[in-house]
Amino acid sequence: MMLSVDEALQKLLAGLPVSGTERVPLAEANGRVLAEDLAAPFDSPRFDNSSMDGFAVRSADVHGASRQKPKSLLVAGDIPAGKSASTTLQPGHSMRIMTGAAMPAGADAVVPVEDTDAHALANGALPAVVQVYTQVSAGGYVRPAGQDFTSGQQLLAAGTRLRPQELALCAMLGQGELLVHRKPRIAIFSSGDELLPPGEKLQAGKIYETNSFTLSGLVQSAGGEAHLLGTAKDTLADVKTHLDAAVESGADLILSSAGVSVGSFDFVRDAVESDGRIDAWKVNMRPGKPFTFGQYKNVPFVGLPGNPASAFVGFEVFLRAALHAMGGVRGWQRQAVRARLMETVESDGRESYLRVLIHVNPREWQVYLTGHQGSGNLYSLVQAQALLRMPAGVKKIRAKSLVDVWPL
Amino acid sequence: MMLSVDEALQKLLAGLPVSGTERVPLAEANGRVLAEDLAAPFDSPRFDNSSMDGFAVRSADVHGASRQKPKSLLVAGDIPAGKSASTTLQPGHSMRIMTGAAMPAGADAVVPVEDTDAHALANGALPAVVQVYTQVSAGGYVRPAGQDFTSGQQLLAAGTRLRPQELALCAMLGQGELLVHRKPRIAIFSSGDELLPPGEKLQAGKIYETNSFTLSGLVQSAGGEAHLLGTAKDTLADVKTHLDAAVESGADLILSSAGVSVGSFDFVRDAVESDGRIDAWKVNMRPGKPFTFGQYKNVPFVGLPGNPASAFVGFEVFLRAALHAMGGVRGWQRQAVRARLMETVESDGRESYLRVLIHVNPREWQVYLTGHQGSGNLYSLVQAQALLRMPAGVKKIRAKSLVDVWPL
Repeated sequence: MMLSVDEALQKLLAGLPVSGTERVPLAEANGRVLAEDLAAPFDSPRFDNSSMDGFAVRSADVHGASRQKPKSLLVAGDIPAGKSASTTLQPGHSMRIMTGAAMPAGADAVVPVEDTDAHALANGALPAVVQVYTQVSAGGYVRPAGQDFTSGQQLLAAGTRLRPQELALCAMLGQGELLVHRKPRIAIFSSGDELLPPGEKLQAGKIYETNSFTLSGLVQSAGGEAHLLGTAKDTLADVKTHLDAAVESGADLILSSAGVSVGSFDFVRDAVESDGRIDAWKVNMRPGKPFTFGQYKNVPFVGLPGNPASAFVGFEVFLRAALHAMGGVRGWQRQAVRARLMETVESDGRESYLRVLIHVNPREWQVYLTGHQGSGNLYSLVQAQALLRMPAGVKKIRAKSLVDVWPL
Repeated sequence: MMLSVDEALQKLLAGLPVSGTERVPLAEANGRVLAEDLAAPFDSPRFDNSSMDGFAVRSADVHGASRQKPKSLLVAGDIPAGKSASTTLQPGHSMRIMTGAAMPAGADAVVPVEDTDAHALANGALPAVVQVYTQVSAGGYVRPAGQDFTSGQQLLAAGTRLRPQELALCAMLGQGELLVHRKPRIAIFSSGDELLPPGEKLQAGKIYETNSFTLSGLVQSAGGEAHLLGTAKDTLADVKTHLDAAVESGADLILSSAGVSVGSFDFVRDAVESDGRIDAWKVNMRPGKPFTFGQYKNVPFVGLPGNPASAFVGFEVFLRAALHAMGGVRGWQRQAVRARLMETVESDGRESYLRVLIHVNPREWQVYLTGHQGSGNLYSLVQAQALLRMPAGVKKIRAKSLVDVWPL
């Protein structure tokens, strides 16, 4: 039975474990997946503070002030950043205050330094009296406590992939360490007698092995840790040796790409089934139909086709979602972009993924095929800026239609 | 004089050096920038090869074949993947061939195994005779030499950021190592008496330092190497100590984020100018106006504002382009997406960057503000899926307009 892409993805995801957790310093948590909910332990800002360098005042004291009729206030204190006033602001007084510094009790507004006769420099001498040239409303130039978030508010949920901006938020909460998921460890090998490592001398009938480089880069980009095991020969024994090495390396998932021949894949299937099982071995898609998954010695196994474009598409369609799920991400969704297809495209009714160029025009993205879409053709993939998805059952999409593309 | 965003960016980029080069193994080149042009040393495929497991034939020999009237051919050889036939295919003969294996001389087509009486398994015994159930055209199931690219074709240009698919192409060309640019080394420090490292006990009037976490993550995402130097106190001496530590660390660029106070920034400016120069200190943008750059001891210096959202936007607007350029990328362009703005937004005529949520609808992306856009507010940035750019001079964009957004 041939599974649809959606059926295969659901079945694959159902069998995958979620990685355990570990504590890491905040500075090492970029790209990791949070494994705990984080709530705010305090308001942010924690205290009412000034949004300008200037003078904290009682707004009633400067009512009606102007350049022609300035109001004169005693300067009763100085509040640099990081300090707070120990006394309450008295009527007719002011305190010099720096941006971000806590408002003194009694003050309800700030007059920016440029609206006074004071020197603009923070480290200048404190004047005894300041002339205020403008009136301010209560709350003026004050950033109130809790404007960003309030104590107890849920801010980050377990299952969030941490970007630099989330790290900043964790820092703001005072978290020096975070509980995160371990990176899923993916053991990768290729198989096929025709494969040579790049750098070696080329031989008749051979080709250079490419997929372990593609797949290790893609695994990293999806938050996994790639463990490269090289190339297996087309013998049952050598494929088993590689599968066993993967298990012994502590892999959370074994990822193979078979030689391009069906015959080559047969060895992989036989080796997996010798101590495991294959749950699915074909998916109704193009390219990438010979997509396989199961288990070997209770470790999840995924077999991708050998052709470079098929392996790449298979990763994007299945493995990227799988790695996010194994890594603890909840509810990961690929961000598709709607684009205008600029030429008519055809397929055979299988769910199809075509390599396209993007032209950004003032209203929309316009997309064009990059050239020959054969699954062995790598250069048209290198030129591609996105993959265009043709749903199952669709044999033709006419030029000028709107389509979904996945930016690469 | 206040520079526009474009003026500031051009002026900043003009003063930056491009990193030198080094050779790295292909497996370590993911995300690096190629420093050499690569042309194809051979055709790909290098030789005509079979696109199916089956039998290589002369198409004339199977003309008119059908299930009812099969054509019988002697099986004169076996060509597994990685091997090539040493003899020419004679009329009336066939050779068993695996997907990807080189076509033998004399053959011009392949009959897939399922259109013959042969056993499907590659490792089955070779039959003496095969019955062919279908005719094939000349060229049928043959992938011709040079279909992907041809010998001498320029495939990758110096200045290309290497994605997994480019690594695969380099592998296909046999490149075991690549000449790439060194990662630009960015020394990062914050300054401000109010800043505490996350993990320490909170004190009155203090806040936790966030920008070094944001900036180091962003530097990594733009292909740089971040070197963290901690927080400087608001004294000329301590800021100079941090600047000197950056120079001694071999930094290609020094990146500081000042405390939120203007006063705090004054120490940074004075320290830089004590042995260097400031070329610009304000840009007509929102947030992020106090954006500064220059040189300290001949090392490029960039100063970002202290407010978390300002520092983030400053990085995205200036530093991301700067890091790609320093890393050797040629012609980097941010991929903006056109989206429908779902609410009217206002600014003050400065080039503005607003934090938005994306709703993907069947025709387009629709975007909404994430909440309070204050430059000290981090949570609305964490919630944002994109930044919306309002060009300079625009004070209002009405709901339902098309806008450019930068996905985050």
